Amino acid sequence: MDGRWFEDFKVGDRIVSPGKTLTEAEMIDWAFHFDPQPFHMDKVAAKAHMYGGLIASGWMLGTYTFRLFMMTNPWAADASLGSPGLEELRWVQPVRPGDTVHVVVTIADARPSRSKPDRGVVGLDWQVRDQNDETVMTMRSIQLLRRRARLD
Amino acid sequence: MDGRWFEDFKVGDRIVSPGKTLTEAEMIDWAFHFDPQPFHMDKVAAKAHMYGGLIASGWMLGTYTFRLFMMTNPWAADASLGSPGLEELRWVQPVRPGDTVHVVVTIADARPSRSKPDRGVVGLDWQVRDQNDETVMTMRSIQLLRRRARLD
Repeated sequence: MDGRWFEDFKVGDRIVSPGKTLTEAEMIDWAFHFDPQPFHMDKVAAKAHMYGGLIASGWMLGTYTFRLFMMTNPWAADASLGSPGLEELRWVQPVRPGDTVHVVVTIADARPSRSKPDRGVVGLDWQVRDQNDETVMTMRSIQLLRRRARLD
Repeated sequence: MDGRWFEDFKVGDRIVSPGKTLTEAEMIDWAFHFDPQPFHMDKVAAKAHMYGGLIASGWMLGTYTFRLFMMTNPWAADASLGSPGLEELRWVQPVRPGDTVHVVVTIADARPSRSKPDRGVVGLDWQVRDQNDETVMTMRSIQLLRRRARLD
């Protein structure tokens, strides 16, 4: 029963991830596979564009954000029942090659399920911050988590 | 000046992407890299889990959704000014190995920018549908698009 279950999450708790340096190579590679817009994969076009250079794909940043969060081992492997969705995702600032991001998650809500006594619903407020501690992305997510099984 | 610019998007327009079959191999590979939860990458654990088998990572589905949409060449390469964010992303139903998804985007809003006359804001309603035309994911996104440059 290692790891956290629903009842271990309290409003106001913070979880801070490791950092990750985003390389130009992976930004271009990601864009070519998944988000082929000039300002994500073409240095020449990106320089002439409003952003003045390559910026990371928002889907790359979101995916990496979740990966960094998972590296904190936030809950027991058997506790997660998945996520119904996200709210208000915002790409606040461009992220550029060489930037280093980390994730700060604050527990915004934690309430037992009304219909299913074995689980609860946790609201997570996400901030992705760069090496200057400036926020580059935010979102709110909903997570379903099991309660710790009782042995009585 | 090939492709669509802001003024080419009308409320109610629909854009339908090609389909993509999601293989077990890529689901497991994606999960191992980006979303390492048992029900995304461990067939044995997934079978015992509430989903009864492997399901695709939500971030994989979101990323592939955008990729499929980009395959429709929705706007001129120079028209996109990026996206400020997403609203109400919902993973409605689990997506399983072998499922084939496509994307239906409906233009929900299209209005000129108040502050910047060279661009407009387009609201996109997204539905991801499977091979039975059942909706597996929805979201709303905001897209900034340039107006076609005038030569006069």
